[in-house]
Amino acid sequence: MAADLDRPVVRAGPITSWAVGGMPEVTSGSDLGQLAMEPLTSSGGLRPWDVVVVTHKVVSKAEGRVFSLTDYEPGPEALALAQELGQEPAMVEAVLRESRRVVRAESGVLITETEHGLVCANSGVDRSNVGGGDWITCLPLDPDGSAERLRQQWLPLAAGGPLGVLISDTFGRPFREGSVNIAIGVAGMPALSDYRGLHDPQGYELHASTIGTADEIASLGELLMGKVDGLPLAVVRGLTWSGREEGSAPLLRQPDRDIFRR
Amino acid sequence: MAADLDRPVVRAGPITSWAVGGMPEVTSGSDLGQLAMEPLTSSGGLRPWDVVVVTHKVVSKAEGRVFSLTDYEPGPEALALAQELGQEPAMVEAVLRESRRVVRAESGVLITETEHGLVCANSGVDRSNVGGGDWITCLPLDPDGSAERLRQQWLPLAAGGPLGVLISDTFGRPFREGSVNIAIGVAGMPALSDYRGLHDPQGYELHASTIGTADEIASLGELLMGKVDGLPLAVVRGLTWSGREEGSAPLLRQPDRDIFRR
Repeated sequence: MAADLDRPVVRAGPITSWAVGGMPEVTSGSDLGQLAMEPLTSSGGLRPWDVVVVTHKVVSKAEGRVFSLTDYEPGPEALALAQELGQEPAMVEAVLRESRRVVRAESGVLITETEHGLVCANSGVDRSNVGGGDWITCLPLDPDGSAERLRQQWLPLAAGGPLGVLISDTFGRPFREGSVNIAIGVAGMPALSDYRGLHDPQGYELHASTIGTADEIASLGELLMGKVDGLPLAVVRGLTWSGREEGSAPLLRQPDRDIFRR
Repeated sequence: MAADLDRPVVRAGPITSWAVGGMPEVTSGSDLGQLAMEPLTSSGGLRPWDVVVVTHKVVSKAEGRVFSLTDYEPGPEALALAQELGQEPAMVEAVLRESRRVVRAESGVLITETEHGLVCANSGVDRSNVGGGDWITCLPLDPDGSAERLRQQWLPLAAGGPLGVLISDTFGRPFREGSVNIAIGVAGMPALSDYRGLHDPQGYELHASTIGTADEIASLGELLMGKVDGLPLAVVRGLTWSGREEGSAPLLRQPDRDIFRR
């Protein structure tokens, strides 16, 4: 493995981690990276090999991905789906505009594949933590790019890095109750750990062992940030990594490899 | 929320966490709880509100859930499925005996629903970390019971608790590449956090906000324990919780609520 510098692997020693308090309100056009500098510094600072997890909600807000449902005129597909699902037509219209494909529409649930290739409820369009009323947030257009821009801004705080930045969202999942956070944007680190072809301590080859480490780190971020406390950032310390950095793409299963999307 | 003592919620302050080193080899009949006492103590001890994550593999071994494929005589269903999938007939027989239903069998992948109600590849039957050759491990018969027995054994180390114990396994998932750890056994803490009916900081009700916190903690365990280091336990410190404890059952989506199992 020593010679395999391209193999993406995230390793951990003891991990310490915390939510970042004191973030000011983020609105459309806010310089999120700049706004977070002081809170990041005063909550424990950043060091090389830290990972910052950022909820997509503040990224979406800063990037102006906040819209009013009153601006969506539902088309025929949205009207039909809304009636079938018992949902608001303008909301369904917003969801469809953020999607490239409907994966499931039944039992009141609309699962779509977004332009990014994410499969999730309502294309990630969400009404919570955005002021109530008719306001919605949509996912960032380019979460990997958003993560990379924040990483560039925060690198000086981490003595030049390495520094990982993950943009997270809360996704439901088939088979299990309870949503978990996953990484929709990844910068500065590999998204997956790839152990294929390696061997366990007894010498047995580990089959099919790719681990969604960025999703696992995002899930730790959810534990730290919670759902009702308005804490949009967390810092995870104790990881190291090597190998290719390819954004969040390695986490996206391609439809032709996905037996649950057919 | 103060009056709602039944509502399950897991909260976090800063989290510190580490893998437990120095575990002796676990074999069939080992007293896993007893074997782990010294390693747990010397790696940082336990305190009230700690959560210990245990990979199911050592639980399966200690409980004698290790078998040889040579003891499985493939029946007609296993032979047919094995041919269709390009898998070993004895392995498919073992998987079927651990399942109550085949969810998907295609593209070389066998997804089943286990007797516990878990949906996963190969009923959790696994050949890694078990000595190679024809040996397999099957999931513990009652992971919640296993977790509770370990919790009882370890409570004195944690000054009487509260103490959470999670039994984890590594599961693939639809839509996303990379497996993540989830909690197949839960004791001493709620498996889900239920925010339904609560409000975000702007007063908007959080819809459908149940979070699979035990799975997120198990995922942190995966980061700490890795796949090739033979570290079967991790300790997570910094959580608190309240509300009903019902084992891992709240994490299992019932088939009639699951649009991807029909």
